[in-house]
Amino acid sequence: MIKVGILGATGNVGQRFIQQLAGHPWFEITALAASERSAGKPYEQVAKWRLDTDLPEEVRELTVVPTKPEAVDADLVFSALPAEDAIKIEADFAKAGMVVCSNASAHRMEKDVPLVIPEVNPEHLGLIDVQRKKRKWDGAIVTNPNCSTIMMVVTLKPLMKFGIENIHVSTMQAVSGAGYEGVPSMAIIDNMIPYIGSEEGKMETETLKLLGDFDGKQVKEAPFWVSAACHRVGVLDGHTMSIWARFNKKVTPEKVKDAFLKFDPKLSDLPTSPKKAIIVREEPDRPQPRMDRMQGNGMSISVGRIRAGKADSIQYVCMGHNTIRGAAGASVLNAELLKKKGYL
Amino acid sequence: MIKVGILGATGNVGQRFIQQLAGHPWFEITALAASERSAGKPYEQVAKWRLDTDLPEEVRELTVVPTKPEAVDADLVFSALPAEDAIKIEADFAKAGMVVCSNASAHRMEKDVPLVIPEVNPEHLGLIDVQRKKRKWDGAIVTNPNCSTIMMVVTLKPLMKFGIENIHVSTMQAVSGAGYEGVPSMAIIDNMIPYIGSEEGKMETETLKLLGDFDGKQVKEAPFWVSAACHRVGVLDGHTMSIWARFNKKVTPEKVKDAFLKFDPKLSDLPTSPKKAIIVREEPDRPQPRMDRMQGNGMSISVGRIRAGKADSIQYVCMGHNTIRGAAGASVLNAELLKKKGYL
Amino acid sequence: MIKVGILGATGNVGQRFIQQLAGHPWFEITALAASERSAGKPYEQVAKWRLDTDLPEEVRELTVVPTKPEAVDADLVFSALPAEDAIKIEADFAKAGMVVCSNASAHRMEKDVPLVIPEVNPEHLGLIDVQRKKRKWDGAIVTNPNCSTIMMVVTLKPLMKFGIENIHVSTMQAVSGAGYEGVPSMAIIDNMIPYIGSEEGKMETETLKLLGDFDGKQVKEAPFWVSAACHRVGVLDGHTMSIWARFNKKVTPEKVKDAFLKFDPKLSDLPTSPKKAIIVREEPDRPQPRMDRMQGNGMSISVGRIRAGKADSIQYVCMGHNTIRGAAGASVLNAELLKKKGYL
Amino acid sequence: MIKVGILGATGNVGQRFIQQLAGHPWFEITALAASERSAGKPYEQVAKWRLDTDLPEEVRELTVVPTKPEAVDADLVFSALPAEDAIKIEADFAKAGMVVCSNASAHRMEKDVPLVIPEVNPEHLGLIDVQRKKRKWDGAIVTNPNCSTIMMVVTLKPLMKFGIENIHVSTMQAVSGAGYEGVPSMAIIDNMIPYIGSEEGKMETETLKLLGDFDGKQVKEAPFWVSAACHRVGVLDGHTMSIWARFNKKVTPEKVKDAFLKFDPKLSDLPTSPKKAIIVREEPDRPQPRMDRMQGNGMSISVGRIRAGKADSIQYVCMGHNTIRGAAGASVLNAELLKKKGYL
Repeated sequence: MIKVGILGATGNVGQRFIQQLAGHPWFEITALAASERSAGKPYEQVAKWRLDTDLPEEVRELTVVPTKPEAVDADLVFSALPAEDAIKIEADFAKAGMVVCSNASAHRMEKDVPLVIPEVNPEHLGLIDVQRKKRKWDGAIVTNPNCSTIMMVVTLKPLMKFGIENIHVSTMQAVSGAGYEGVPSMAIIDNMIPYIGSEEGKMETETLKLLGDFDGKQVKEAPFWVSAACHRVGVLDGHTMSIWARFNKKVTPEKVKDAFLKFDPKLSDLPTSPKKAIIVREEPDRPQPRMDRMQGNGMSISVGRIRAGKADSIQYVCMGHNTIRGAAGASVLNAELLKKKGYL
Repeated sequence: MIKVGILGATGNVGQRFIQQLAGHPWFEITALAASERSAGKPYEQVAKWRLDTDLPEEVRELTVVPTKPEAVDADLVFSALPAEDAIKIEADFAKAGMVVCSNASAHRMEKDVPLVIPEVNPEHLGLIDVQRKKRKWDGAIVTNPNCSTIMMVVTLKPLMKFGIENIHVSTMQAVSGAGYEGVPSMAIIDNMIPYIGSEEGKMETETLKLLGDFDGKQVKEAPFWVSAACHRVGVLDGHTMSIWARFNKKVTPEKVKDAFLKFDPKLSDLPTSPKKAIIVREEPDRPQPRMDRMQGNGMSISVGRIRAGKADSIQYVCMGHNTIRGAAGASVLNAELLKKKGYL
Repeated sequence: MIKVGILGATGNVGQRFIQQLAGHPWFEITALAASERSAGKPYEQVAKWRLDTDLPEEVRELTVVPTKPEAVDADLVFSALPAEDAIKIEADFAKAGMVVCSNASAHRMEKDVPLVIPEVNPEHLGLIDVQRKKRKWDGAIVTNPNCSTIMMVVTLKPLMKFGIENIHVSTMQAVSGAGYEGVPSMAIIDNMIPYIGSEEGKMETETLKLLGDFDGKQVKEAPFWVSAACHRVGVLDGHTMSIWARFNKKVTPEKVKDAFLKFDPKLSDLPTSPKKAIIVREEPDRPQPRMDRMQGNGMSISVGRIRAGKADSIQYVCMGHNTIRGAAGASVLNAELLKKKGYL
Repeated sequence: MIKVGILGATGNVGQRFIQQLAGHPWFEITALAASERSAGKPYEQVAKWRLDTDLPEEVRELTVVPTKPEAVDADLVFSALPAEDAIKIEADFAKAGMVVCSNASAHRMEKDVPLVIPEVNPEHLGLIDVQRKKRKWDGAIVTNPNCSTIMMVVTLKPLMKFGIENIHVSTMQAVSGAGYEGVPSMAIIDNMIPYIGSEEGKMETETLKLLGDFDGKQVKEAPFWVSAACHRVGVLDGHTMSIWARFNKKVTPEKVKDAFLKFDPKLSDLPTSPKKAIIVREEPDRPQPRMDRMQGNGMSISVGRIRAGKADSIQYVCMGHNTIRGAAGASVLNAELLKKKGYL
C-alpha cells in the first residue's frame, strides 16, 4: 500500500478525498493535514463531516497534523488547498520528495507542471522529468484542471479528430463548487448568479494546454479558441454545460455521437476509472445533474442533446459531478495513473 | 375606457393579465373567458388565484363567460390561450370584429400577422392593414413573441447599427414559463433541465422577423443567424440569458454599453412602458432574476457583464420578468401602442 | 423464489418497489401491472423512470399487464395503487388467492385487516386468519401505515413501557410524498405549505391501531391520543417530525435515549431489515433529511435532539425516508415477515 | 422630523431598517453606523445592498460613522447589532441620552427594560420611567421580541381572554432569520434543519413577559407555559408556525376565529401599523410564506387552519415576515408608539 496524505483535509474537497480513498486498493491514508488550529486533535473532532455517507471508520481517530512536509508521513499527498496557500506549500512538499496531486489552480499553467486528465493527455506526465530536472526536486507537482474544464475537455478529446475550430460553452454550475459556505442560501433560492470569479478564464486557457501536444520538452497549445460564460444555479452537485463546437469541416451529429460511444481511454486497470468515460443519453431532456451525476461512481461524464447547430456547428450538453469527477476523483485518478506509469 | 376581455383568464398568464390591467387608465376588464366548465360562475370561485398580490376587487365577482366571440363583450381581447386552441379561436374573435392581442405562438410567424415589441418594431403594426385586406376581417390578430425572445431582442435592437453577424444565446429560464403545474418540484429541486420543448426554434426564427424590415407589404427577415440553447433552472420568475453577439466590424464593450444606455424607444406616453427599457448594471454579478425582475414594474430588461469575447464578439447577460415583460405585460403594451396608433 | 407482482408499477412508489426488489434474494418480479393504456408494452417504454439509479436490467423488457388478477402471474402482489382504486382491486386479488401487501390507505383501518410494521406489531399478522375466515379468501390483504405514521410509531414502540399519555407531532414532509407531479415547483420554491390533505387524521388513528393489543380476534386501540399538524417543505425525500411525548410518570431524556439505543426488533433474518431500526444522533442539528435518509439503505429511522420539555414531557426529532421506509420498503419488509411466518 | 440613526446599518436587518424608514413621515435617517472598517465612506460603497427594491436615494451617499454615541447625530437609534455587541453599546447610547429601539436580544429580559409589541402590551413602555430612575439615564432602551415570538404573541393576545393554559408551537423559519450568510445553500437545498440555536428558549420566556401584567413597577409573567420546537426550512422570508393552544375552559374554533377577526389594537395613527394586525385566511392551505408575507406591507400576521385539536385544544397556523414584522418593522413601530406616547 502506498501511503497518502491529504492537505486541506477538513474542507469540502478534502472530505471528498477521504470518501474517494476509503477502502482504496492501492492507497492508504496515513496523514490528514489541516490548519494549526486543528492539528493534534482526532479528525472526527475537528472536521464537521458533511457528506451523506458516514465518515469512514479508518480516519475517525486519525490525529490531524499541521500542513508541513516534516509532519506528513506519506509518499504522495493530495492537495485540496486554496490556490493562495497552494503556491508555496505544494512546492515545499515536492521539494521534500513527495508527489503532490493537486486540485488547486496555483501551479496548473506553469510550463513544467503537468495538467492532466488520464482519459485525455496521459502522456503529459512526461513533464515530470522536465520539472524535476529544472527544479531539482525528488518529488513533483501534478495537477488536474478546474472542475468545469474537466467535463468539457473529456468530451472534446474524441472530437479532436474532426478539427475543432472554436468552442462556445455556457455552464450552469453547482453550489458545491464554491465550497461549503461559498454560496449563501439567500443568494440562490429562487435565483441564479450569472458570474463565477475567474472561472471563464480557466476554461478558456486550461483547455488548450490539456488538448495540446507534448513533444518531450514542452506542451504546445491546441490551435483553437474557447469562449466561456459561467453561471451558478441552485444545484448541489453536478456542473452542466451547453456546448457549441465548430469544426474545420462539416460533421454530423451522428458522427459526434459515434465518437462519444466509441471513446475508450483504456484505463480499466485504474480502480477509480469508470466503466465508461462518456455516457450518451438518448432522452431529449438529459443529462440532468441530480439524475446522472453519480453515474460511474461519480466519475462518468454524461452527454446528450447532440444536434446540428447553425453554421455547421454541433451543439450538445455535458454534465459531470464537480466534486468527484471534477476535483477529488480527478486527483485520485491522476495518482493511479502515476503509479501505473511508475512515478510512485 | 376601452372594453377588454381576457381569453384563458384562469391560468398563469391569464392571472398576470388581470394583475396588469387592474386599475389601468385606458382599459377596463369587461369579460373573463375560460372553459365551459368554469363559465357562469364568479371568477373568484373558479380561479385558484396564485399571485402574491390580492385578487383585484373589480374582477372578484365578474361572471366567467365561455371562450366564444358572442359571449364576450369587448373591443379588444387578450389571449393567454394554449397554442393549439389559439389557432382557431383567435381567428374567430378577429373575424367577429375584435382586435386580439395574443401571447400564444399559434399565429406569430404567419406572414400577415404582426409580431411586435413596441420598443423594437412598432412599424410592423402596418401588417394589420395587409391582414384585414387579405382575410376580410374587421378585427385583427397582433402577437408578441416568446418570452425568451423578447428579453434578447429588446437588447439586440440598439446593437443593430453595429451590423450583427450572428448570435449565440444560452438561456436559464424560470419555472413559471411552463405554467403553474408545468414543472414538478421533484423535477427541479437540486436539479436543472437542459431542454425546453421548441423554445430554441422560437428564439432562432422570431428574432429575425422582429428585427426585419417592413416595406408596407411584408417583413423581410433580418440578415443574420441566431443559435440558441435553452435550459430550465429553479427560479420562479425571470429568464436570464448569456449572449455572444458577433458583428461585421469590431465593436468595443464601451460602445455596446453606450448603445444600451442611450436606447430610448420614446414610449413614455404608454402607461405600461417602463421609464427605462434597458437597465445597465455595473456590478460583476448582476443582473440576477430575484433581484432585478421587478425593475420598471417588471417591464425593464436588465443587462450586465458587457465584455469583449473571443474573435471580436461581445458577451453580455440579459434578464427580464418572463410572465410580465415576456407575456402579459408585452401584450398589454402592444394594446397600448395599438390605441396610440389609432387601431382601436 | 417467490413470484411477485407490482400494481401501479409506473408511478413514484411503483418505481421504488422495483428498486427495492431488484436482486432480492427471496422475491422475483414476474408481473408489472399498470393502466390499460400501458398494458402490452415493455416496461421501459411506458414508464418514465425517475430514480437516480438505473432501471434494473431484469424489468426493462418485461411486458406490462393490466391490473387484473387473471393477468398477473404471482403469489404475492405489492400495491402502489391510489386509495380509490385500491378498495376494489386489492380485494379482487385477495379473492383470487394472492397475498396483497398494500401501501394504499384503502383497507388499513378495517377491523380484520392487519396494519403492520414488523418492528412494532408483527403479531398483528394473526388478523390474516380472522380475515380469511370472515371473507372466505385464499389470499389476504396486509397493509403498512401512512409514511409519516411509520417514522413516528417505530420510535414510539420502545417508549410504550413508560406509559404514553399523549403525543403532539408536527411534521415537515418531503414533496415525493405527494407523487411525482403532486407538488408543482411554483408551489414550493421559497415557500412551504402548512397542509396535507387527510394526513393528520391518518397519523392520529393509525398510530393507535399499530400500538394496540391483538387478542387473537381483534385489535384493541392503544389508550392515548395523538394530535398532529402536517406541513409540506421543499425537500425531495425524507419526512422529519418534531414530537412531544407525555408519559404517565416522569421520564428523563437519558432513559428515552437508552430505550432507543437498546431497541432491537430481532429482524436481522429479513433481507430488507436495517442493522439498526433506530439510529440515535448526538449532534445538536441532526437528523436532517438529506444527510440521514439513506441510513440503513433508507430503512433506518434517525432520531435526535432528545430533551426534556415542559410538564414532564420529552421532546425529540425523528426522520425517515418516506418512499423507502415509509412506503415501498415498508411493504417489502411486511412481505418478508409474511414469508418468515409461513403465510406465503 | 425626528433624527434617527441605525446601528449595524450594513447587515441584513440594517438594510431592512433603511427600507422601512425611507420616506417615513416622522423619522429622518441622519446617521448610519457600522464597523470601523466601513466608517468614513459613503454607504453605497460599503454596503452590499441585497434587497430587491433599490437602495433609497437619500442614504446612498450618507457617510457611514463608527458605532459610538459621539459620532451619531440622532435623537433615536435603531439597533440591528448582534447580541454580544449590543450589551454594552446600546447602554452607551442610552447613557448618552438617546432612545434605543433595539432588535437585539441582549437586554430584552432585563427587569427594567420594556419588551414591547405595540399591538400587545403598549403599557409596558411605562418601564422606561423605572429604567431611567434606576440607571440614571436620559435615554432609554426599548426592545422588541425575537421574530418568531412576535408572530405567535400577536395572535395569542386576543386569545388571552379565554384563559390560556399552555402552548405547543412548532416553527418553520426562513433562512433570512440567520443573516445573509447564516445558512449556506449546501445546508438547506433539498434539506431542512431541525434546530435553531437558543430560539426555543426565547419563545418560551419572552412570551410570558410580553403577555404579563405591568403594575407600574414591574412586569409579572403570564401564568402559563410555552413549549417550542424550532426548525429552519428553505424559505427566504416568512416564519410559519403551527400552534396548539389549550385553554382553561372549552373554546370553539369559531370563537377563536371571531377573536382574531375582531382584534383591533387601535394603532391606525402609527404610520407603520397595518390596516389589520391579523388577517384570517379561509383557504385550507394558507397562510403560506411566499404568498402572504407582504400583507400589510409585511406588517400583518396571517392565520389559518383554525380547528379543534385533541383535549379541547385549538390548533392553528400563523405566519409573518420575519425581517419586517419580526425585526426592523417591529422596532420602527415601537419608535412610533414612543413618539405618540411622548417619550421622544
